[in-house]
Amino acid sequence: MELNDDKESCSVREKKKRLKKVSVDKLSREELEARVLQLEAQNVQLQNILTKKFQEESSVLKEIGKQKKRDKPFDFSKYSKRHVLLKLAYLGWDYQGYAIQDNTSKTIENNLFEALLMTKLIESRETSNYHRCGRTDKGVSAFDQVISITLRSRLNLGDQKNENGDDETLSSANMKKEIDYVDILNKVLPSEIQILAWCPVDEGFSARFDCTKRKYKYFFPKGNYNIELMNKAGQYLKGPHDYRNLCKMDVGNGVVNFKREIKNINITLINLDERDSEENHCIKSPEELELIEKKSSSYSMCVATIEGKAFLWHQVRCIMAILFLVGEGKEDPDIILQLLDVENYPRKPQYALASELPLNLYETSYEDSIEWRWNYRALLYVVTQMQTFWAQHNIKATMVRHILHDLESCLYKLEDGDGEEVCGQSLGLLGEPHSKKGYRQLMTRPKCSDLETRVDHYVKRRRLDPNILDKEKEAACENHKTDSLDPNIPDQDKDKETQYEDINKDSIPS
Amino acid sequence: MELNDDKESCSVREKKKRLKKVSVDKLSREELEARVLQLEAQNVQLQNILTKKFQEESSVLKEIGKQKKRDKPFDFSKYSKRHVLLKLAYLGWDYQGYAIQDNTSKTIENNLFEALLMTKLIESRETSNYHRCGRTDKGVSAFDQVISITLRSRLNLGDQKNENGDDETLSSANMKKEIDYVDILNKVLPSEIQILAWCPVDEGFSARFDCTKRKYKYFFPKGNYNIELMNKAGQYLKGPHDYRNLCKMDVGNGVVNFKREIKNINITLINLDERDSEENHCIKSPEELELIEKKSSSYSMCVATIEGKAFLWHQVRCIMAILFLVGEGKEDPDIILQLLDVENYPRKPQYALASELPLNLYETSYEDSIEWRWNYRALLYVVTQMQTFWAQHNIKATMVRHILHDLESCLYKLEDGDGEEVCGQSLGLLGEPHSKKGYRQLMTRPKCSDLETRVDHYVKRRRLDPNILDKEKEAACENHKTDSLDPNIPDQDKDKETQYEDINKDSIPS
Repeated sequence: MELNDDKESCSVREKKKRLKKVSVDKLSREELEARVLQLEAQNVQLQNILTKKFQEESSVLKEIGKQKKRDKPFDFSKYSKRHVLLKLAYLGWDYQGYAIQDNTSKTIENNLFEALLMTKLIESRETSNYHRCGRTDKGVSAFDQVISITLRSRLNLGDQKNENGDDETLSSANMKKEIDYVDILNKVLPSEIQILAWCPVDEGFSARFDCTKRKYKYFFPKGNYNIELMNKAGQYLKGPHDYRNLCKMDVGNGVVNFKREIKNINITLINLDERDSEENHCIKSPEELELIEKKSSSYSMCVATIEGKAFLWHQVRCIMAILFLVGEGKEDPDIILQLLDVENYPRKPQYALASELPLNLYETSYEDSIEWRWNYRALLYVVTQMQTFWAQHNIKATMVRHILHDLESCLYKLEDGDGEEVCGQSLGLLGEPHSKKGYRQLMTRPKCSDLETRVDHYVKRRRLDPNILDKEKEAACENHKTDSLDPNIPDQDKDKETQYEDINKDSIPS
Repeated sequence: MELNDDKESCSVREKKKRLKKVSVDKLSREELEARVLQLEAQNVQLQNILTKKFQEESSVLKEIGKQKKRDKPFDFSKYSKRHVLLKLAYLGWDYQGYAIQDNTSKTIENNLFEALLMTKLIESRETSNYHRCGRTDKGVSAFDQVISITLRSRLNLGDQKNENGDDETLSSANMKKEIDYVDILNKVLPSEIQILAWCPVDEGFSARFDCTKRKYKYFFPKGNYNIELMNKAGQYLKGPHDYRNLCKMDVGNGVVNFKREIKNINITLINLDERDSEENHCIKSPEELELIEKKSSSYSMCVATIEGKAFLWHQVRCIMAILFLVGEGKEDPDIILQLLDVENYPRKPQYALASELPLNLYETSYEDSIEWRWNYRALLYVVTQMQTFWAQHNIKATMVRHILHDLESCLYKLEDGDGEEVCGQSLGLLGEPHSKKGYRQLMTRPKCSDLETRVDHYVKRRRLDPNILDKEKEAACENHKTDSLDPNIPDQDKDKETQYEDINKDSIPS
């Protein structure tokens, strides 16, 4: 096979290939031997190319393939177990979401369970007493996802209890004897998914129900956004509200209560000075903010931080979409007040979600008695992986930034254009795409169905209790709780139909 | 041969292959014939699988498929042509290199020609009088690649000439009438490959042979590198030298002259202050440099700029590999002097190339009479595309930077480790991976074959003229030129064998 011969067109090469197939009985012995060697070499070459391609597609499957060959049946009954929390971080950009799905193996959970099974830390998913803190969608990342699960233990039950006992020497020794869960799992997990720490918990502890706080971060380029206006609008979101107009209503799965509480929300520029990156995590004075603002450009990065106990499906991305419209000056900050006023505005106007790429489940909290166990060597390994990812993306970003600098200079010099438009315009990629017809005010747009209509739809299909709304109201009165039915959306298994619903329509098919 | 049977381990498959490779001279005539037929069949099977995969990969091909159904045959004879230069930029990270290859459709050139054919700007590649300025490898990007090519024109020959005529009104009108090459191509090209500008040239103009200067940039994180030492070593590279120990010798393709000239080389930190990003392109005083150094961290970005008329295969990546070793303190800057001293060190020590990701063919130059034609609207489109890429990568980098900040704080707090080690260690991902055996000095390592041995190897296989080295010396004396035989490496077609050579060995199989 001729390679790299760019003088030949594809059709000529095809002809050559056909010509080569001379009948074998016409070849001499010598020619036959040479032909065999040549074909074997070509074959190996092609195999190598194909093997490379398959390897690119499968990350953990390789490991499983090797492992299955060596496995004798594993006798779990010989080992004790313990209930633990695992803290994990994952870069979800190239995954189809956190939750296992039928039609793809490229989910966080799938890789996690492959790793747990391969390392014999669990016998099966069904018997592992597994709960997860949050469920992130396709493309979304997390730095503080937590799961509760029962794992194989090297210690007997007595030693497990002694870890927190009075005898410090004994408990320290016991802790070191335990399986190094973090290290073992990280070696078989893909590098985008890493365990950070673990800690022992009581049998009944649930990563899902015992979570006291969830904090999301959303990283975006400043572009032309007015951060001050975005913060003004953001503050209206604080407190207990009905957020049905700022989420995707998951009625099909029994979610009919949209009251949640946003405890904190803040948007800030990220300080450019690397050395002071700790300051990025502190509250800044107005003077400091002004100074940062002056030094910033369209290419500066911002971060929005939103904190609450529990969130609705797509709530953060809906919020960011509206805040971007406010930041662009297309809507007033007061639009938030309208969207939260479900009495007068029970139907959500149609608008697109903000991109999933910048979203990260950044911090989750549990009761104070939870003591995470960190291991230096294991953590160093995670840091190394993350540094590699950072370098790859920052190298690319830096390279592109350079050409943008040159191209933007060209644009300014070209006489027949308005250079001012350029900066930041397409950096608004995170919100709605620009429409040639011009911007349409939110409250003038077609509206999605209201809650009652959606409930009717599912009641008719016998998938919901006809009295669900009344029961919800009763429960709310009795408990004075706002989230008694489903404290941890979007944890519930998604209805297949709603999962593939057209987000932009966000309406019940008629 | 079983394909895609991931239940078999790799070692079992290997054994199967070895069993099959019985020595050909031990086979009977019958067995040989059978073997040829069997291998041919397997070959076809593999080819088909690969072809399917290419079709999945190829973006533009789908369009062509649709297009072909609708097309009436296009009558090129109705149109005049003109010889032009096209300036293009591409992000090569996800491509298999610039040059068209048999085993993949994911090359820059393939996409370029699909676009040129689809838009009927050329009739076929063979008749398009095509030359390219530089040929970049897999993963490498370019912001100033130039090609010369003959395209369909809307103007008659007379109007083409008038564009640069005395009558300004007429020439301006003519220029506007011409096909908007940039716009038309960019709409069908993938967004990572974009035309920036075009300009008319005389029939004989060659993007390859008429290029007067090529400048590469290499973007990398500062990590623990000593930039001052790297620059000291870099300066030794300037001037005319024999760079055989700092490249991949392409002897199989007739490259036996390794004398080139590096006109400029400089490594600098990239200024953190976005507003002053223009300054990144200016020379800085020692005081400015010191100030920048103080504000920098392991996560600051640096750029190496290397300029010459022509470069050898992998020359820049070899240079960066050595400079990284110098920057890490593993080699003295003087190592460069040794590597350039081909009299005393005619054989290259084995070392790995630096990563291809950060490399960019940043600027190419032609004679002054070349006037690039820029179009505001088209350029705005390119800027928009690039801003999207920048945003995607910077969002990811920013997100990862944040978790690194948190994780590194954890590491510092853990008592049983040395937090100081962490910063920058794995940011040296671009050079050699750390070996557990420890670092081995370059000049103590196994060496690759020297030039004469390689020439012998190919002469024996009758692929090179036995007198090639002598002829080279004569030519060099007569012309006083250093690059008379092949001015524009790595443009030449790569030898099949060297393409699949193990880069790390970089030696002729014995």
